[in-house]
Order: sequence, then C-alpha cells, then structure tokens
Amino acid sequence: MRILGIDPGLAIVGWGVIEAVRGRFYPVAYGAIRTPANTEVSSRLSLIYDDMQRIFDKYKPDALAIEELFFNTNQTTAIAVAEARGVILLSAQQRGIPIAEYTPLQVKQAVVGYGRAEKKQVIAMVTSLLSLPSPPKPDDTADAIAIALCHGQSAGSLLSKFYK
Amino acid sequence: MRILGIDPGLAIVGWGVIEAVRGRFYPVAYGAIRTPANTEVSSRLSLIYDDMQRIFDKYKPDALAIEELFFNTNQTTAIAVAEARGVILLSAQQRGIPIAEYTPLQVKQAVVGYGRAEKKQVIAMVTSLLSLPSPPKPDDTADAIAIALCHGQSAGSLLSKFYK
Repeated sequence: MRILGIDPGLAIVGWGVIEAVRGRFYPVAYGAIRTPANTEVSSRLSLIYDDMQRIFDKYKPDALAIEELFFNTNQTTAIAVAEARGVILLSAQQRGIPIAEYTPLQVKQAVVGYGRAEKKQVIAMVTSLLSLPSPPKPDDTADAIAIALCHGQSAGSLLSKFYK
Repeated sequence: MRILGIDPGLAIVGWGVIEAVRGRFYPVAYGAIRTPANTEVSSRLSLIYDDMQRIFDKYKPDALAIEELFFNTNQTTAIAVAEARGVILLSAQQRGIPIAEYTPLQVKQAVVGYGRAEKKQVIAMVTSLLSLPSPPKPDDTADAIAIALCHGQSAGSLLSKFYK
C-alpha cells in the first residue's frame, strides 16, 4: 500500500510518500509545497490544490494520512492552516482516495513509541526507519512522513480514525 | 456589478446574489448549500465545492464577498468552518473571481448603519433594501445577502479589503 502523509499548512505543506509492504516501509518521495508570503490566501490555496494534483498524478497513493488540527497557538495562523487543510481534504476526496486522521500523540506513539516524544526524536526515527541518508528537511516533511508511517502501522487496526 | 455574498459553514453555506446598479441593489437569487451531518468532512467539502461551481455557472458573479472568520465559540466547529471557507476561496480563485472580505462589524455597519446591530435588524434591513416578499431563510442566507450588500456599498471605497 502506498501512503501519502500530509502535514498541513498555508506557507508549507509537508508531504511524504511511503510504500508499506508486509509491515516494512520504504521511502518513495517526499518534499514540501511552499506558497509565497505576501500573496492572497485564495491564491496560495490554489497553489496547494494544484501541487496536490501533481503529487496524486505522479505517486498515485492508495491512502492519505493527515494530522488532526487543534487550536493552541496563534488563532489567525490556525484559521489559515484549517483553510489549507480543507483544500487538501477536498483534493483527496475528489480522487476517491481514503483519508485517515491522526492526532500528534498517535503519530508520536506510533513512530517513537512514546506520545510525548520530542520533535527531534520523531525526525531521528523517521530517518532511521526509512534508512534515509539524512533527516528530511524541512521539519514539516519529516512530520508528514511520520504521519504516513503512523498510518502504515495502524492501517487495519482500530487506531486509525478513517473518514472515507 | 453582480455580487455573490457567502456566509461560510460546513453544515450550511448561506449564499446570495445581488445586482448593484448605480448605487441601487436588486436581488437575483439566494439560498443555502446544506451538507448532511454524520457524513465525512471531506465528502461535505466536496459537496460545497460542487455547489459553488453550479452557483458560479448559473449566476456568473463578478465578485465574491465573504465574511472574515474569527474564533470565539466552539473551536471544533471553527476548524470545520475554516476548512469549508478554504474550499470556497479556492473555488472563486480558480474562476478568477475577485474576493473581498468583511468583518461582521463592517457588514452590520454597512447594512444597518450600526456595527453592534442585532441579527434581526440585519435581516429586516436586507428584506427591506431588496424589497423581498419575506425575510430570507435560513439566517445564513440573510447574512450572505448582507455581506453582498456590504460589498456593493463599499466597492470602490477603502472599506473593502480586497485580496485578489
């Protein structure tokens, strides 16, 4: 199963595609969609939508795993992240790609084995699990791969909260 | 100029199309996009996107006016509203339709002349200004028409905060 993990954002959308084969995980491709600051939100959303199409076309994922959104920090940023997340959910829905959501705690639990793990531990585990030559950059990309790995580990179990 | 006003939401998207001709406003059509509860968010976003296409196709608005989002009440609801709003902004952007945003205070100021007006005053003014046979239902639709009227009154002035 090919899984696309997404760490949503308006300025940076981290993404990572992994192949899960009988409990083993292999990297396929990963990167980040970046949208220019000082540009209209609607225009940035359109760039994200278009890049999602390219990722779907090129890597043909069987599932999309995305982080659940919580509000804790800057509310204005949170609105923008949610708007971007809506566009990402739409793009997967239009392709008929099943979507799974995970909380940050579930992702850390799955990847590091400890729900309160630090970001650097997550990045180290992502790098190690996929035998990557160096830690993925930016952190959003490493997070996206971690979300994909979380889905790979929990797909088929009750941990995942599917909504498609 | 034909203006489409939008009151964004996940369960209900209020919409209203008005024609602004030399400072006078005429109703064209109004209604509400409703999405079923107990359905996946991604599926509801897709319904909203598709209905936006139908509204654009049928009424060919020259501009879209939409309410700015603030967080005050339920945060889980707010995330869903922002996700829907992202899809609506995307749909306008893809059509090249200019988007204007207004705060609830600006809308009330423009329509009632008083920024702290109550909802029923807004509905009464919308009904009166457009000589409608009865108040538009649901309230989301009346709000959407108010946003369109706000844009009609402020288009060309510095009140509007265009972002396209």
